[in-house]
Amino acid sequence: MASVRSLAGRINIDSTSLNQNIQSLAAIGSTRLAYSEEDRRARTVVVDLMRDVDLAVFIDAAGNIIGRRPGQQQLAPIAFGSHVDTVRDAGRYDGILGVMAAIECVRALRDADHTTVHPLEVIVFANEEGQRFGALCGSRALVGPMDEAALRQKDESGRSFADAIRAVGGDPAQLSASIRKPGDIAAFLELHIEQGATLESAQIPIGIVEGISGITHTHVLITGAAAHSGTTAMETRKDALAAAAQLVISVEQAARERRCRVATVGQLTVAPNAVNVIPGNVTLTIELRDLDAEKISTALGHVRQQAEAIASRYRVRIEFTEHEPIQPVPCSPAVQNAIRQACIGLGVEFQSMPSGAGHDAQIMAKLGPMGMIFVPSKEGISHSPHEFTSPEDCALGTQVLLDTILRLDETLWSGTRSEP
Amino acid sequence: MASVRSLAGRINIDSTSLNQNIQSLAAIGSTRLAYSEEDRRARTVVVDLMRDVDLAVFIDAAGNIIGRRPGQQQLAPIAFGSHVDTVRDAGRYDGILGVMAAIECVRALRDADHTTVHPLEVIVFANEEGQRFGALCGSRALVGPMDEAALRQKDESGRSFADAIRAVGGDPAQLSASIRKPGDIAAFLELHIEQGATLESAQIPIGIVEGISGITHTHVLITGAAAHSGTTAMETRKDALAAAAQLVISVEQAARERRCRVATVGQLTVAPNAVNVIPGNVTLTIELRDLDAEKISTALGHVRQQAEAIASRYRVRIEFTEHEPIQPVPCSPAVQNAIRQACIGLGVEFQSMPSGAGHDAQIMAKLGPMGMIFVPSKEGISHSPHEFTSPEDCALGTQVLLDTILRLDETLWSGTRSEP
Repeated sequence: MASVRSLAGRINIDSTSLNQNIQSLAAIGSTRLAYSEEDRRARTVVVDLMRDVDLAVFIDAAGNIIGRRPGQQQLAPIAFGSHVDTVRDAGRYDGILGVMAAIECVRALRDADHTTVHPLEVIVFANEEGQRFGALCGSRALVGPMDEAALRQKDESGRSFADAIRAVGGDPAQLSASIRKPGDIAAFLELHIEQGATLESAQIPIGIVEGISGITHTHVLITGAAAHSGTTAMETRKDALAAAAQLVISVEQAARERRCRVATVGQLTVAPNAVNVIPGNVTLTIELRDLDAEKISTALGHVRQQAEAIASRYRVRIEFTEHEPIQPVPCSPAVQNAIRQACIGLGVEFQSMPSGAGHDAQIMAKLGPMGMIFVPSKEGISHSPHEFTSPEDCALGTQVLLDTILRLDETLWSGTRSEP
Repeated sequence: MASVRSLAGRINIDSTSLNQNIQSLAAIGSTRLAYSEEDRRARTVVVDLMRDVDLAVFIDAAGNIIGRRPGQQQLAPIAFGSHVDTVRDAGRYDGILGVMAAIECVRALRDADHTTVHPLEVIVFANEEGQRFGALCGSRALVGPMDEAALRQKDESGRSFADAIRAVGGDPAQLSASIRKPGDIAAFLELHIEQGATLESAQIPIGIVEGISGITHTHVLITGAAAHSGTTAMETRKDALAAAAQLVISVEQAARERRCRVATVGQLTVAPNAVNVIPGNVTLTIELRDLDAEKISTALGHVRQQAEAIASRYRVRIEFTEHEPIQPVPCSPAVQNAIRQACIGLGVEFQSMPSGAGHDAQIMAKLGPMGMIFVPSKEGISHSPHEFTSPEDCALGTQVLLDTILRLDETLWSGTRSEP
């Protein structure tokens, strides 16, 4: 097996081709909402690039683009990829890097005339961003049935989700045929920009993701009493915004005290929202994220306790509506180890870190061992045209992805894998 | 003069007629925006009631309804009144009480066959609430010229301010003829509901207004950096809403520490206002009110100083835009004393207090000594259909108004007045 392992670090990624391909999608525009005309054009470019590296490409029933390369043996494939749909006014790297890197890995293997033991599968997931019809649509369709009611949802133009899937070449009637079982993939890997500033601040080029954070969203309604701001004494007020301000600070404090990793009030609306009226109602959202579901739940309990004291002090009512939490998803220790070995083999610095954002990888973890590789985002900016990762970091991340694939191809086949 | 003074407390207000008249306007609806069809119908009712008590009624160029009753001598009149226009979905007492009380005072004097030394003038001011074209329009037109540009303003239906004035019988071309000079009135009195809960809490039926609070409105823009709530570490955030929350608390604290009487953030808007995006921008308004302009300015300075510390702590920019302040207007000590004597004569409890809200009286103070009488508002509720003042309190306030008019009629004429 030495022959295979030694290839890691010796089959080189073509940085020029990679970075050209990344920039090529920018010409289509910075907004490529899933299932839109812009998304379809981006998908056409990607299908051409995939065929160009000799992948056998097809569109599955959910609209995922899948490109296959045979292996030496009839094994479950090692899969890797990302997405090309975007939010509005997005950057050039989120998703796109992972797709173009996957294609470049296949090109490098082909040019080196190397056939892996496992078949390889490049997956370009449909509708990761979920600007319509919900996030992670393509990967969700790979792991379980889609709700019939969901398929009847309409977007802002009145088009149904089913019709949107058809527009990118999917077939809503055949969705169940696309569903895979645990074990149907040997491993899943996704290279992605960090979308935060941790790696840049630490000046480390590679992040090995430990897991994808769990999330709770809690909707809060604060009910005070709207009243004339000139005639109502401070002592008799029931100011919903003053109470909300205290709650916003409690939420922020929960993360600063390390009760959970990050805590955010992103949305806050005041009613009646007039200069000379004491706010009668405030609604706001609390978002808590951590790799540990227990910590999220304890932090939320702490915030709710503080809210009780705030409600009594400001004589307002504070009601919490908790939404179904998104559970944290740990990355496979074996895959993390393969990424680590790849970094060591290449002599590049790395650090372990959580993913704060959600990714298709967290869904793919249901099918087999999952891992993610992060590269630095300049100033942590993402979902913005200012999103930037240097060509060198893009190439280095892609090289780590390729070497990880080669290491997994070896270890998973040789039976040394530490998990099924 | 003993004969006149002794009348105070002996000419009685007809509570039934007063309260019937107050309720009569409710039939027109709870929304009577200035210059609307509903406003015109209310004005017609009021003109009829004024003629019914033998007032000589005319509409001035600004659309104010003015009813005159001759005095024994050719002196500047003692004027009193309020308004019948409302905010949307308003109560039955704000403004209306002062108008119906004025009519009832004249009825009581007529029925007692008493002619005051001074002529009397009942004024029903046009557009006090300012839901269109700005507040206190009618009283402003009495004290100075109206801006030509203001007359060309359009309301939501496209009607100009000039046409709106014409619709209630005014004549925009003749506005300058309505303007009065300081000394043109002997005194101005306005009976009004408190619109706060001070009197109700203290169980005192009469408030003697010391002055009308000055107001500053400051517009604040907080600029942070919108970023992904999952991927951006707490330490690297520039969260505009967390900074805003600290500022809201500083503003509230300024009044709780008695730096000014009341302090309010009534309006606050978050951008982009999404569950999973750290707020990049927040705009909010700071309103400070006090009888002492110096205290307002010092309190605002204190808040701005705290904002600097908040900006540096949260790494955001905080910009203040101060609008032209509304200066506080003190009530005439002589008029306050006359109200006090009226209360003592009637054996009713009273307390001195500021007016937190603006009133036409503050404009009329430019023409002569001004005073205001407050009666309790149930739970301090105002600008709402739940606004309520008991029939007894309405009648008692009206009786105090009448007795104050009689006392002023005596003291202002006998040369014992303490101010011009």
